Amino acid sequence: MPQFLSTADADFESAFAALLSAKREDSPDVDAVVAGIIADVRDRGDAAVLELTARFDRLELTAGTMRFSEAQIADEIARVPAAERAALELAAERIRAYHLRQLPEDASWTDPDGATLGWRWSAVSAAGLYVPGGLASYPSSVLMNAIPAKVAGVERLAICVPTPDGVVNPLVLLAARLAGVDEVYRIGGAQAIAALAYGTATIPPVDKITGPGNAFVAAAKRRVFGKVGIDMIAGPSEILVIADGAGDAEWIALDLLSQAEHDESAQSLLITTDPALGQAVAAAVERQLETLERRAIAGASWRDFGAVIVARDLDEAAALSNRIAPEHLELCVADPEALAPKCRHAGAIFLGNWTPEAIGDYVGGPNHVLPTARSARFSSGLSVMDFLKRTTLAAMTPQALAAIGPAAETLATSESLEAHGLSVRARLNRLNDL
Amino acid sequence: MPQFLSTADADFESAFAALLSAKREDSPDVDAVVAGIIADVRDRGDAAVLELTARFDRLELTAGTMRFSEAQIADEIARVPAAERAALELAAERIRAYHLRQLPEDASWTDPDGATLGWRWSAVSAAGLYVPGGLASYPSSVLMNAIPAKVAGVERLAICVPTPDGVVNPLVLLAARLAGVDEVYRIGGAQAIAALAYGTATIPPVDKITGPGNAFVAAAKRRVFGKVGIDMIAGPSEILVIADGAGDAEWIALDLLSQAEHDESAQSLLITTDPALGQAVAAAVERQLETLERRAIAGASWRDFGAVIVARDLDEAAALSNRIAPEHLELCVADPEALAPKCRHAGAIFLGNWTPEAIGDYVGGPNHVLPTARSARFSSGLSVMDFLKRTTLAAMTPQALAAIGPAAETLATSESLEAHGLSVRARLNRLNDL
Repeated sequence: MPQFLSTADADFESAFAALLSAKREDSPDVDAVVAGIIADVRDRGDAAVLELTARFDRLELTAGTMRFSEAQIADEIARVPAAERAALELAAERIRAYHLRQLPEDASWTDPDGATLGWRWSAVSAAGLYVPGGLASYPSSVLMNAIPAKVAGVERLAICVPTPDGVVNPLVLLAARLAGVDEVYRIGGAQAIAALAYGTATIPPVDKITGPGNAFVAAAKRRVFGKVGIDMIAGPSEILVIADGAGDAEWIALDLLSQAEHDESAQSLLITTDPALGQAVAAAVERQLETLERRAIAGASWRDFGAVIVARDLDEAAALSNRIAPEHLELCVADPEALAPKCRHAGAIFLGNWTPEAIGDYVGGPNHVLPTARSARFSSGLSVMDFLKRTTLAAMTPQALAAIGPAAETLATSESLEAHGLSVRARLNRLNDL
Repeated sequence: MPQFLSTADADFESAFAALLSAKREDSPDVDAVVAGIIADVRDRGDAAVLELTARFDRLELTAGTMRFSEAQIADEIARVPAAERAALELAAERIRAYHLRQLPEDASWTDPDGATLGWRWSAVSAAGLYVPGGLASYPSSVLMNAIPAKVAGVERLAICVPTPDGVVNPLVLLAARLAGVDEVYRIGGAQAIAALAYGTATIPPVDKITGPGNAFVAAAKRRVFGKVGIDMIAGPSEILVIADGAGDAEWIALDLLSQAEHDESAQSLLITTDPALGQAVAAAVERQLETLERRAIAGASWRDFGAVIVARDLDEAAALSNRIAPEHLELCVADPEALAPKCRHAGAIFLGNWTPEAIGDYVGGPNHVLPTARSARFSSGLSVMDFLKRTTLAAMTPQALAAIGPAAETLATSESLEAHGLSVRARLNRLNDL
């Protein structure tokens, strides 16, 4: 059973604070190993990648077989059953439609002084997407990472997905195809991140790397950050459900378990204004845990990090939610539109009883790569913006420079940056000479 | 004298590659020291901050004097000469006007299946801005960091600026006042970053930390990243000028020096289609270096990292520029509007001979915090977006869930995430029962 808390309890604050600060991950310190792998790949390129793949994935490749050929991809994809193909196509279509709306606009205007200002968005030229192998090899994550990159206009999009013992997930290849991925390499781990960042004879370097991975992949991404851009380092999944008396205990229990089943370190929380619903949800979770395939994982997560919190009213629930800043926030209440604006810090909000979080994992449209570990206080989920960058533009006329140049000169002087001031002054002098 | 290269040279590629990969910074490894300081501030709060300030800044403060009072700020500001105040006010006004245009819009729409989707932007609740003390204490940087935060809607904005030996820069306090900063603490170094990230009895914690600093500050920002958001870790300044025969050698020389004077590790490059202009600029730089106040710094930067590159034509110049991905790009050419679209990777572009880069440092309007070290390939300058985050929104109707839920269930099953599928199925079953 998870913790039961009530905001009416005398010790609520300390219990809630403990819940917020619970250390859910014991990240092994793999940094030294990863540093060695990266240095090796930088030094020896393909040779290092091939050796490490043989060692860690028990797979003998060559420079020529490191990348899936078009024929191999077509063969694998042909094995995907029609229902799964149709589901993946629907997901891809909906994700693309949502992300197309995120494309930002360029701007340009001329101000009263005659200065023309603005900005221009442009896509990252080349991006790499890491896809884990084995159990956590999710085709949905391929869509969620690759489609925003292609919508942004990334010209070259490469995937690295390890195939331990040679086992390939055809759905991953189909997702890559649907998303428009250009190159698929069957390598993984820190060696794949190093290859994407620094390039090898076979794998040209990219400018940005996104996608989830294990501790080695995360450490490698941290290390290559700066040389290339990276997305966030994702922590274990989280869901917070806020429910009033209108919530359905069975549905909420399954929603909580759908995060708990990801990882023993996942966190599933319920805040409810109805103590009876809280009890009913907890009982429903226990019932479901009797038969759930991943009950060992989901049960550990729920027992160690789950909680049911009884709040006085929905305003108090929203205030607690803002302190949690959850990755996923479900509002299983009678009037979710009224509650949503009060919830300022959340990666994604799912409004109403008919919107299970799992819809957002696959076919809703919004991205499922979202900020974890309270980072929704200051960061956003993956989007088209992650594959774009903004260049600011400024053009002065002689008149504009005459109007604002003297102020720049004054400030340059006050900051003891003489050449800054002189670069303005030289032009102003010419203007005076004209 | 700097390097002279020509794309017609047989060894151009290797010389250009060497220029691109030149290691300009020798970052001292201060990570262990910084880790100790952060742990100390987390453990002992104010007491640690006060001791470290006494040791590093030779300044005895108390919890009560760590923060500037309103009266102290008013007294200091009163000392700012009228011309400097007017210049700073003009800068603040123009920076605010530019950044107001960056505010993104929320979105909401209902798709053909009946799903209502969208997103909502909200501001980070509290932000901290680091301002270096001493020589690099730039009031313009206060404006460039603080105004976007306030335009975004950050409710609580705190500044940390060290005052070694008690010396205060009144212009920094005036800039803070003009930008609407809420709290100013006279502390610096890794201890200030730790205090902002973890909070002390006197300094409440923030959610995001931005602003430049020395190696200790940079290392501390890297370490607290995750607990709070941070902006980029800025490297030494860079400018690339592209000039055709229409360029003015004297002006270009001063523009190159205005970056070189920042730092011995700064890099100033000229690419020109006119070899005679290249020679004339180099000669003009040497002349200016005879008298420039910061000639030791600027001269070292120009000698060690500067270069004049002769290109065949402007298309080739743009292609080289894209490989450099400069922080600042000046287009001193007859038709800058035609050339700008070809330059895809740059932090900021300054169009035409009448737009010296220094205008952008102070009063142009766009931000002067820009990506360095080739990171303009994948990142953008500081903006209002850095103080906002996006929450995605999704609301299903029963009909919408009936339309797209089965695909989610199929994909959940294929990913072996049973509870994900059940959370959708339980709702679809209810619908069938109705």
